[in-house]
Amino acid sequence: MAVMGEEGRGPLLMDVSRTVFLREDKLVLIDRRHLPQAAVEVVCSDHEAVAKAIEEMAVQGAGDIAIAAGYGLYLAARRAAESSNCAEAWNFLQEAKQRLTATRPTGYHLAALLGWLLKRVEVGKPNWPEQILAALEQAVENQRKRSRSTGAWAETLLADGDVILTHCFPGAALLYMLQEASAKGKRVEVIATETRPYLQGARLTAWAVSELGIPVTLITDNMAAYCMSIGRITKVFTAADRIALDGTVANKVGTFQLALAACYHRLPFYVLGYGGPDSHCATGKDIPIEMRDPEEVLCFNGKRITGDKVKGFYPAFDLTPPALITGIVTDRGIFAAERISEYRTLKPGSHST
Amino acid sequence: MAVMGEEGRGPLLMDVSRTVFLREDKLVLIDRRHLPQAAVEVVCSDHEAVAKAIEEMAVQGAGDIAIAAGYGLYLAARRAAESSNCAEAWNFLQEAKQRLTATRPTGYHLAALLGWLLKRVEVGKPNWPEQILAALEQAVENQRKRSRSTGAWAETLLADGDVILTHCFPGAALLYMLQEASAKGKRVEVIATETRPYLQGARLTAWAVSELGIPVTLITDNMAAYCMSIGRITKVFTAADRIALDGTVANKVGTFQLALAACYHRLPFYVLGYGGPDSHCATGKDIPIEMRDPEEVLCFNGKRITGDKVKGFYPAFDLTPPALITGIVTDRGIFAAERISEYRTLKPGSHST
Repeated sequence: MAVMGEEGRGPLLMDVSRTVFLREDKLVLIDRRHLPQAAVEVVCSDHEAVAKAIEEMAVQGAGDIAIAAGYGLYLAARRAAESSNCAEAWNFLQEAKQRLTATRPTGYHLAALLGWLLKRVEVGKPNWPEQILAALEQAVENQRKRSRSTGAWAETLLADGDVILTHCFPGAALLYMLQEASAKGKRVEVIATETRPYLQGARLTAWAVSELGIPVTLITDNMAAYCMSIGRITKVFTAADRIALDGTVANKVGTFQLALAACYHRLPFYVLGYGGPDSHCATGKDIPIEMRDPEEVLCFNGKRITGDKVKGFYPAFDLTPPALITGIVTDRGIFAAERISEYRTLKPGSHST
Repeated sequence: MAVMGEEGRGPLLMDVSRTVFLREDKLVLIDRRHLPQAAVEVVCSDHEAVAKAIEEMAVQGAGDIAIAAGYGLYLAARRAAESSNCAEAWNFLQEAKQRLTATRPTGYHLAALLGWLLKRVEVGKPNWPEQILAALEQAVENQRKRSRSTGAWAETLLADGDVILTHCFPGAALLYMLQEASAKGKRVEVIATETRPYLQGARLTAWAVSELGIPVTLITDNMAAYCMSIGRITKVFTAADRIALDGTVANKVGTFQLALAACYHRLPFYVLGYGGPDSHCATGKDIPIEMRDPEEVLCFNGKRITGDKVKGFYPAFDLTPPALITGIVTDRGIFAAERISEYRTLKPGSHST
């Protein structure tokens, strides 16, 4: 039996504040590795515990990881505030930021949000924790708006009868897109890849979409091209963990394969790009691809699935070149991948967090 | 701890007679769903039990499934021999053949071998079981020769330093190919996709290759294109469950996606085609694609991995068009996919079983 949604609040994963929140000055994470079967809480009392929870994937999705890390920085600021030595305290906070930043290298939002939060701290004032918390609450609200706006733009791409393939959990924008399409009377369906090895597509996406009342079908990662070949899919939407200025998209490993299959079948391939590109990455080569512990490929549910002498390899993300992308949907509109750098000029001055 | 190979006999899966064999007039199958962790026996005393074991994938691979079904026909012949009414007995045998043929529709060898075995029965003579058994033993020997010859041809395509991507368990030809390359001093490596949902790549291929002493790395099905993009793969080899005369290849679902990724990266994509095309299939459209129980996608290790309202879809095979295939390697040589129909003319008169 899956975890039930709360009446009138939509799917649990539509709002980060329902799975990543403070309680009695500890960070509570609803552990995504146990969803949808159980709502298991991971309770973190310091930034090191938050860093470990991020590394072990109790939370996922570039935006939500950043928010969780932001709370880790808040916990570190509370600890720092106990010190009477300001330089020592500041050092501690910087080190906490480094530790949290190092947890997951590929996603853009993590380092960006932590840097932005730290810049909001007025070092001369004593209330660092309150300053970080206020900024973080603003960031959570910004993320909600960004997701809603991205979803609204994406919805304009949908037609009645569309069957959308997606991969991993593309965040709340996908859910907003589907909700709005539904409200407008467009009948849409979703096909979700299970997304090995962590099964985010099975456990998070398919479940969240079904909670919206939208028909959803689960396939394994190797079935997408077949589904395209028999006409079962009309459009593909994935998210992006980071976008380079040349339009290359880093996203959950497997995205690139889906883009190749979509291109062959002449199906539109859209990326939910939320807050646009990372202006520090000129091309895809500038995006670090996280390599995770190969054990996570060699085992399933804690049980080894292959022989003792077999090695594993686990790149967690891949790069999809702009030529394979039909459009990148952001909170500011829809861009050709090659022109995504124009995102910044469209509404200058506003920070992406 | 994985099942150990026996000294000097090579990997368990190199020889069908070590996993599919008669003992005290019952068919014993070493259940492939438990390999490599345990050698669990499924013992079948009649053809219905054999049919169920095939349907439930205790045995896999088009060739080995056919051999197992052949033993099912033998068990049916023994039962038929108990009848004093010849017409009734013949009817029973025909029905058993129908039942066994219906278990798995996509693979070519199953129906072909059962038809061939039944044609070898001289109805007027009383010893049907012995006739079928003798023919079956010849079929096993033919399969061994076909695998060895296909592997030997495939080996000529390998260069020192090759890293071969493969999918599902492509049968003994892959192992013969690797063994021969190794004997000739070519250093080769293998990357195996895990092949969801049954994990044949993880449980069978990666294990069997490692038993040969060849370095092997396991990846999930969605990582292949990334591995190609970073230059980790030099050639792709998969098997074929059935080949149409136009060169379209039906194989384990996911093969088509790998062929698309290989094409994009300009990597050779070879098919181990063993006994060549099915002369009754002009094009890929003539090959039935088996749809399996969606529950097998919704659950893993007996545990549901998604929400209660999510549906599943499980096409077990897909079709790779000839334009994506560099060559089809058979026991009679290597063919351009578009010219695979010439296989039959190369050595006419010999039956493919």
